[in-house]
Amino acid sequence: MTDFGVALIGWGTVGQGVLALLRDRRDELAGRTSVRFELRHVIDKDLTTPRDVPAPPEVLGDDYARVLADEQTHAVVELVGGTGAAKQIILEALAAGKDVVTANKALLAHHGRELFAAARRAGRCIAFEASCGGGIPLVESIRRGLAANRITALYGILNGTCNYILTSMLDRGIDYADALAEAQQHGYAEADPTLDVSGTDAAHKLTILASIAFGTAVDLERVEVAGIDCLELTDLTAARELGYRMKLLAIGERDETGVALRVHPALVPVDHPLASVAGPFNAVSVYGDAAGHTLYYGRGAGRMPTASAVVADLIDVAIGNAGRTFERLHVLPDVTEAPAYRAAEQIESRYYVRIMLPDQPGMMAQVTRVFGDHQISLSAVAQHEVDEHQPGRIVPVVVTTHHTPGGTMQRALRELKQLEVVAAEPVCVPVVDEHPEF
Amino acid sequence: MTDFGVALIGWGTVGQGVLALLRDRRDELAGRTSVRFELRHVIDKDLTTPRDVPAPPEVLGDDYARVLADEQTHAVVELVGGTGAAKQIILEALAAGKDVVTANKALLAHHGRELFAAARRAGRCIAFEASCGGGIPLVESIRRGLAANRITALYGILNGTCNYILTSMLDRGIDYADALAEAQQHGYAEADPTLDVSGTDAAHKLTILASIAFGTAVDLERVEVAGIDCLELTDLTAARELGYRMKLLAIGERDETGVALRVHPALVPVDHPLASVAGPFNAVSVYGDAAGHTLYYGRGAGRMPTASAVVADLIDVAIGNAGRTFERLHVLPDVTEAPAYRAAEQIESRYYVRIMLPDQPGMMAQVTRVFGDHQISLSAVAQHEVDEHQPGRIVPVVVTTHHTPGGTMQRALRELKQLEVVAAEPVCVPVVDEHPEF
Repeated sequence: MTDFGVALIGWGTVGQGVLALLRDRRDELAGRTSVRFELRHVIDKDLTTPRDVPAPPEVLGDDYARVLADEQTHAVVELVGGTGAAKQIILEALAAGKDVVTANKALLAHHGRELFAAARRAGRCIAFEASCGGGIPLVESIRRGLAANRITALYGILNGTCNYILTSMLDRGIDYADALAEAQQHGYAEADPTLDVSGTDAAHKLTILASIAFGTAVDLERVEVAGIDCLELTDLTAARELGYRMKLLAIGERDETGVALRVHPALVPVDHPLASVAGPFNAVSVYGDAAGHTLYYGRGAGRMPTASAVVADLIDVAIGNAGRTFERLHVLPDVTEAPAYRAAEQIESRYYVRIMLPDQPGMMAQVTRVFGDHQISLSAVAQHEVDEHQPGRIVPVVVTTHHTPGGTMQRALRELKQLEVVAAEPVCVPVVDEHPEF
Repeated sequence: MTDFGVALIGWGTVGQGVLALLRDRRDELAGRTSVRFELRHVIDKDLTTPRDVPAPPEVLGDDYARVLADEQTHAVVELVGGTGAAKQIILEALAAGKDVVTANKALLAHHGRELFAAARRAGRCIAFEASCGGGIPLVESIRRGLAANRITALYGILNGTCNYILTSMLDRGIDYADALAEAQQHGYAEADPTLDVSGTDAAHKLTILASIAFGTAVDLERVEVAGIDCLELTDLTAARELGYRMKLLAIGERDETGVALRVHPALVPVDHPLASVAGPFNAVSVYGDAAGHTLYYGRGAGRMPTASAVVADLIDVAIGNAGRTFERLHVLPDVTEAPAYRAAEQIESRYYVRIMLPDQPGMMAQVTRVFGDHQISLSAVAQHEVDEHQPGRIVPVVVTTHHTPGGTMQRALRELKQLEVVAAEPVCVPVVDEHPEF
């Protein structure tokens, strides 16, 4: 039996989940792993707000220095979030000889390289299963389970807030604003949802996962990001009619020319397993040249799912596996090279474009001429009938294209916007094809 | 850099995949893991049949004793299959101080307890990611990724042959026999498909996965098994019309009264992620009390997917993680207790029943009376119109029931069979409800 001392920094949503698991499952975990977890510190700057899961008074405090000085604390669990204090907490823990478990995707996406290097210098490790995909064992599946593969692509639904909103909109025929409000009510969206709906949170996770999957130090700044706030219900229903589902996808691709990283809404073919990922769930399709297409699905956030990943990491740290994985598998950005990047304007895709036009003769001709001028070949054009035919009324026209380079599409969109008849910013969303497996 | 000697026993489909990965990816794996894999032996009793992937002549042979005597061979990869020679190969490898990697589900399902105990006595480990779900990192996701959970249920599509056949039947409107023949042509079914279509192969995998998931030594003999050979196209189309997909499911469930293990065709709700698992793919839904519903999807068989899992295990063995996992996580059947089993006759389910009846008055009344006599409440009855109405013609009648104990349904089926009007064995398939997450 090993005694293993744990300090929890951050007594928030996930912290309380970890507290509950370590408290309620102590003997069971000891029986299963021969590790007796001892919760030695719960540190938070707010000690007074009532919590659902109480912290034992004898371990609760607001002085992190106590943790650093405690030789019986073997691992620090950083659940503070953000890129400020959290970074300092981790660096100090490593310097004090403690292993670190974190769920902090923003921090690792911004400063992973520096933090991993600090851990290596200190002879410690950072475990971060909880940073991507909540309760899904995603990091370790990619890093260890697919270690024999050259991974060529990741397609992920990595933000539960966005997926919840998109699912609600389509299932119940409600607008973006109503779906967002409802997601906030149900606790699936923050009061300020920007980080989620803008695609930034998904970009953080993509940066972490692409680093591991491709074994290369990808740069968050090189992820092209578009959010879901431009989408309207009509886009989701039009996608469905075309045989697709609208999803916010985080896409990482690699070929011999380099890496491309993008987060944007996308039309996913309805028979692709990602299309049926509904509500707050996350899923990632990974394409490896030996395993082929594998997919990992589950709750990407929430108290207990994230706590499940944190405690799995603690077990892995306690029995020594996390340290060996960290040391031996050279896939983290402090020991890998930066990749070449593929230019977005050269990546070809099919596209869905929605343009708002007055419902009167000649309008469509002006629009299709722009596509024609840019050598963009259209695969379908649809103008939906409206209940009452009112000449001059603004209606959505949906166009889908054949494969077109991103740069060409951008130029066509700029020209479309300048047309007097176009009543609002066109919405342009890539149509995702099934990635080749082998 | 660690030098790690590997012996491959079995130069068949998967063996060739492992050969190819170790040959083509040697330097890449060394760079990524600091392990230099050295293929020291390829042993097979057939050295003459031409193979796609050649074995280097200097390591090829048919004398296993050479492997056992070779101190530079650290791990033996058993890819012989079956429960005879393979068992001896593994026991001798362990006794000679070598770790073992195997893809042999039949062997582990029958003799896992004995083999794991032998490994523990020898201070070695057995890694078996490739035994379940081919290229999907399934074993480790359950064993390590979900280690903090009490897992309450597994629902798996664990046999790619059956899933390929069922998908073909429905997609192309063909009969079981034609779909089987085609699966054989495409290499998705063996010449003798019994092990697959009977549900036996899925039962082997369920035995292994349930042991790990529930941390209890489940017994293959206690898995209730029904195959897909009783199904006709009409069952698959009827299921679709009712809003379900017909899948061969391996189901493990646990509650405070015990464990229930079953393999049988089942109607899966169309919006459950398992419903969209098509062709030769496998997937397993795992329900943990912290992580909630997670699902793992990928190719469950085939040369390179299975080789991907074997090489992942080799890396894990070489860097020492597999040994620690084996030693520290007490979830293998040699160190866990046998569970209590829940009696199948008491497990309640909704059911789909198809009965072949002459298309004439009064027939339906006789059938529904039997259900009524057994207090089985029907939720729907459908007799499909036939193109030409021919009195006396035999037509399928489909009945779905409300929740009914298994034993009650068995008694009703026995009575139905005895009715003179019932023209063939009724087909009875459980309807699976979404398992509660938390």
